[in-house]
Order: sequence, then structure tokens, then C-alpha cells
Amino acid sequence: MRASIVAHGSTDFTVRDGPVQDTMMEAIRDLFKHNPGVRREEIDAVLVSTNDGSGYLSAILSEMCDLRPRIAHTVESLCSSGASALVSAVSYIESGLARSVLVIGGDRLRDAGRALDWDAARGGFKSPVFWASIFTRAYKRRFDVAAEELAAVPARNRQNARDNPHACSASDCTVKDVIKSRCVTDDLRLLDCSRPCTGASALLLNNGDTSERFESPVRVLGIGHRTASASAVRSRRFFRMETVAESASMAYASAGIGPSEVDVAEVHDAFSVCEPMAVEALGLAEVGCGAKLASEMLETGDKRVNPRGGILGSGHPPGATGVAQAVEIVAQLQSRAGRRQVQGARTGLIQNMSAAATSSSVVILGT
Amino acid sequence: MRASIVAHGSTDFTVRDGPVQDTMMEAIRDLFKHNPGVRREEIDAVLVSTNDGSGYLSAILSEMCDLRPRIAHTVESLCSSGASALVSAVSYIESGLARSVLVIGGDRLRDAGRALDWDAARGGFKSPVFWASIFTRAYKRRFDVAAEELAAVPARNRQNARDNPHACSASDCTVKDVIKSRCVTDDLRLLDCSRPCTGASALLLNNGDTSERFESPVRVLGIGHRTASASAVRSRRFFRMETVAESASMAYASAGIGPSEVDVAEVHDAFSVCEPMAVEALGLAEVGCGAKLASEMLETGDKRVNPRGGILGSGHPPGATGVAQAVEIVAQLQSRAGRRQVQGARTGLIQNMSAAATSSSVVILGT
Repeated sequence: MRASIVAHGSTDFTVRDGPVQDTMMEAIRDLFKHNPGVRREEIDAVLVSTNDGSGYLSAILSEMCDLRPRIAHTVESLCSSGASALVSAVSYIESGLARSVLVIGGDRLRDAGRALDWDAARGGFKSPVFWASIFTRAYKRRFDVAAEELAAVPARNRQNARDNPHACSASDCTVKDVIKSRCVTDDLRLLDCSRPCTGASALLLNNGDTSERFESPVRVLGIGHRTASASAVRSRRFFRMETVAESASMAYASAGIGPSEVDVAEVHDAFSVCEPMAVEALGLAEVGCGAKLASEMLETGDKRVNPRGGILGSGHPPGATGVAQAVEIVAQLQSRAGRRQVQGARTGLIQNMSAAATSSSVVILGT
Repeated sequence: MRASIVAHGSTDFTVRDGPVQDTMMEAIRDLFKHNPGVRREEIDAVLVSTNDGSGYLSAILSEMCDLRPRIAHTVESLCSSGASALVSAVSYIESGLARSVLVIGGDRLRDAGRALDWDAARGGFKSPVFWASIFTRAYKRRFDVAAEELAAVPARNRQNARDNPHACSASDCTVKDVIKSRCVTDDLRLLDCSRPCTGASALLLNNGDTSERFESPVRVLGIGHRTASASAVRSRRFFRMETVAESASMAYASAGIGPSEVDVAEVHDAFSVCEPMAVEALGLAEVGCGAKLASEMLETGDKRVNPRGGILGSGHPPGATGVAQAVEIVAQLQSRAGRRQVQGARTGLIQNMSAAATSSSVVILGT
């Protein structure tokens, strides 16, 4: 593939609410400010990733930034809108329909974490915490995982987030703090849940022709997706994420690499149990050993999974998340991740999903 | 380009309101029913075009249709969402990320024709009728166009719609009826305005590899777009549509043809004045002569512009419109348009736009 990510920008992730346009503009301004190589007239497409529901945002932002793109539209796929917009940007570049694409993902507190309104068959059990509870119970039972092991995930990710200046949920949180936090359901505690928030991230992709104007472009090596259903209750095995495994194997095949070559990964830890299930489906841990890996990484300070703090540590503006994951991996592969840096990282991936892993996207990036 | 449109489906366009999922499912069922060559497992992407604002529709529809696509997301760009989704589908195919893409465009009465909420600087003048009024006054003054000439557009399109079994606004409406209809603004009468409604249309595209299973595939020959701004008041000349001219010249260049080779066109006549301005920008009429062309076509029964009745005759569910335009041109090029048929049509185009032509898309199709 020709597509490269050549620039990125971000806002703080925060619990302050405000118009989504303002937050998105802040991310774009951050991108422009740090990348003097950007030429506005080369940006052929502006793609917005959001769950905000307000219309014509891509044209509004283009006008506000003095851009005159050809293609401009919003991409929405719930919590994986960001990865979907990134992949759409890659497709515009690979097809030759665009030379350079600006992707902006963002949401505001008000819109984040909405109930799964379409799944009314579940009555009052529509909130995402309910599928996360089912997953947690099934996973712990199947693999005989102790509460302390699983609690390493949110403790570690919140600690990792202390080195992420944009994070919303950074803290010194320990395994004990997680276990002592208040019950949200029979299977989940408050610190097992990520926090809806306001925030935006931006990426600029191009076709490689003008990459010499940018420092350390990062290439898109592989892409995989799967959409299985919209409703969690269609899944038969709640202890593994089939769509993640399918999208991972597709992405590895298209990149021509295997899991052992992945140096750093941002995975979709909207709830604690999601991280071990994801790293297992991605082949980064043995099946049933994902929580143990988190415990080990917590102990040794290993940053290779969710170095920015994942969603648990960074917060979750759903339209921004997939884009923010890619921003982190790009920074890692450019060796610009500061105290979060995984030394010598040359290949990384993001895994972004929606609604109980009913759909998943994996994008592999490399230098 | 390799991308072809191999199948299509539609619902009636109606003033009955109802959940957007139901309407979209009806269009998909219509597509599946008439195209036994469709194999669900080959559909790699499901793109939804809508202004409905409800989340995860592409996954919901995939589940309802028993599809397991890779890529699934919504595309939104106000009234040109449909053309944007079609072009996104083409880009997924040309890039090799998908072999076959299902595009479903739809909206419900409740969501159609919403005010331009972002343009609050205009106070109470936010409804689309106000930019249409400005355009109408400027166009009539600049080119010395009589009310009777311009009234030929809605009269003809409503008459054309009588041969479109799905149309919402078909009637025997005459030029006199238009001129006698009640004033909506100083410059617009009721019959100058299209009607928000409920409706959906669907298209199946593929990469040409399995086209032998489909009757008369239609090829995508050229694509052009321009997004200039979000607000009509940024334009300096209200009597011509710059974005339409730019997207047309891009589309002609990529197809390697000129306007004289276009046999049939669906253009975005949300209001009467839009049709002459569009046909002029597309090079299908001399500048200032678009309304005269409508008068002549009304007199002679010439169907080459808006044979399905355009938006004025068909109704305007904004998410469906661009897709419905393409459905009509495909039917024309397949010689299956019944009494609407333009004899011998081999090349056609659609022109879809948003919000006072602040953005525009042109797609050229051919046999």
C-alpha cells in the first residue's frame, strides 16, 4: 500500500462538555501547528468520525480551516467510527481518488456512551455495562481468572495514562483500588469501566508522493475488519472475540507479518475484560493468558500494550478513539512518545471495535 | 475503473413516516428479490447513507439481512450523502479493500429537510427556502428569465414523475399551476419546492469479476467532487454553481468524455432554479439557457434531464436522493426505464449536492 500517516494532532480528553466542532478544530489546529509541511491545497478529502449526529460537519470544519477538499463526509460506526474513517481514508488514497486525506475523530461528553438503543429486546439491560458484565463473568469462569489478575488491566492502564498529557483518567490506581471500587453490576466495578468524555484527534494521510516534507512518515501495512452483527446476544461464546480474531488474521495476512512482529499495540479496552480478550484474539497472548500478561506488564513496567493508557486510562470519546489509538502508534513508531516510548518499536497495531465486539477493525502500521 | 453497478432496489417515496431501518430493509429486499445472482458472502462492505443520526445502522442492517461484511459504516454529507456513499463504495473497490459493496440510502420524513442549524448567523432565515430564494432572484435577474420559463421545471418534473411508480409528487401540474400556487417567499412558490419524504434506494457494486452473474452491469466511468464551504453566504455569485462546474469538469476529465456525450442526467432540483443552474454548470445547456431548455423539453416530451421526475417529482429523502438518482441512470442505461426510457442512452450522469451547492458530486456511468 502507498498510504502513509504523515501528521497528527490531539486535544486533551476531558469531562468538560462543549460543541463538537470546537473540539475538532482544536485537534486540527494542533496538527497544522506542528507540521509546517502541510499544504492545505493538497488535502483532497476531509473525513469526520463522530457519533454526534449533527449534519454536514466535514464541510463545516473544512470552511472553518479554509480547506476546499473534493470529498468531505462523516463516517459513523459507533465506537469504531475512528478506525472506519482511517480505513476509508486509506481506500481513497489507494484508489487514486485522493492524494491526501485529513481524518478528524471526536465526540463530546453528551454523546459518548449512549445506550444501545436498537437493542430494545434487552429491556432495561441496554447499557454497554451489561454486555461487559456477561463477558467478564464468562471469561473469568472459562479461564479461571482471579479478580486480582483482571484488575491489573485498569490499574496498569490508568497508571500508563500518567505519562499521557491528554488523558482523562490518569491515576495512581492500584489493583486494590480497583477491587475496592463500588459495584456497578454483579461482575463489574466502577474502575473496570472507561469514562465517556469530550475529545478529538486528527490524522493526515498521503500517498507517499510528498512525504519528504514530513518527518518520519508511518506506513499503513495491513487492514482487517469484520462485522458480525449489531447485537451482542447473537454471539455464542462470550469468552472470546471472534470478530477481533478474524480482523486480526486478515490484517496480518495483508501486512505479511505475524503477531510476534508487533512491537506495540493500542487495543479497545472500554472495559477491563476487553483488553485480555483482545490481546488473545490478536495473538499477542496465549488464549486465557491475557489478564496474566497485564499483571506481568504492570509489574515490569512493560508498555507494549496500551502505552497511552488505552481507553480506560485516556477516556472514551467514541468518535475519537480509533483515531487517537493511531496517533499513539504513529508517535511510538516515530520514537516521539516520551516517557511512554516502547524502545525500538518499528511495527504497531490498533484494534478498535463496537458494541460487544459485534464488529472490529485492525490496522497495522510500520516504519 | 473496475467498479460496476450490478443491481439496484427501491421503495416507494412516501409521506408516511416510519423507522428508517424498515424503509432501508424494503429497498434491500427489493434488490435481492430481483437479482438472484447476488451472493451474500461476496458483499465485503455495507455503506449506509442517511441523515437519520441513529447509530450503527450499517451493522444493524447487515444483521437483519444476514450479511457479514468486513467494512460497515454510515456516510453522511447532508443532501449529498448518497453520492458520497456511492463514491466511497467505488474507492473501496478500486483500492482492492472490497470486491462487492452494498450501498443503502434512506431517510424518513421526520429527518428530511431539516433547517441548516449550523448557519445560525442567518437567524430565522435558516431554512433552505431562503438560499433558494436568493438563487432564484439572482438567476432570473441576471439572465432575464421569466417566471413562466422557470415554472416549466417543476411542471415538467412532476409530469415526468407520473411514469415513475415510486414517485411521491407526480401530478399533471402545468406551468400555470406552478405560478398560481401559494407564495412561500417573495421569490418561491409552493410548487417550486421539493417535498421531504420517507424512502430508500439500494445499489450493489462489484469489481467486475462476477459481472457475468448479473444482467447488463453499468460501469462507473468518472467521478468529480468539490466542497467549497458549508454556508451559502460564502458564495459571491448566486446565479451560477461553481462547485457543480468544478465537479463536472473533474468527472468529465476522469471519464474522458464531454457534455455532448451525456445521453441522460439526473440533476439535483431540490428547488426549481437548481435544475437550470445545474444543467448549465454541467455543460448540458448554454449559460442562462437552462430554463429555456426545460420549456423546450416540456413541449417536446424530451426526457433526457430528470426522467424519473428529479427531486421535485420524486420527493426528497436526502439520504436516498443520490442513490435514487444512480438507480434511475442505471435503469436507463440498461434500457429498463419503461415509459421514462431515453432511447439509445449509453452514457449518463448524476449530479448531487448539499446546502446551496456549497458542495457537489458528479458521477458518470456508462455501458
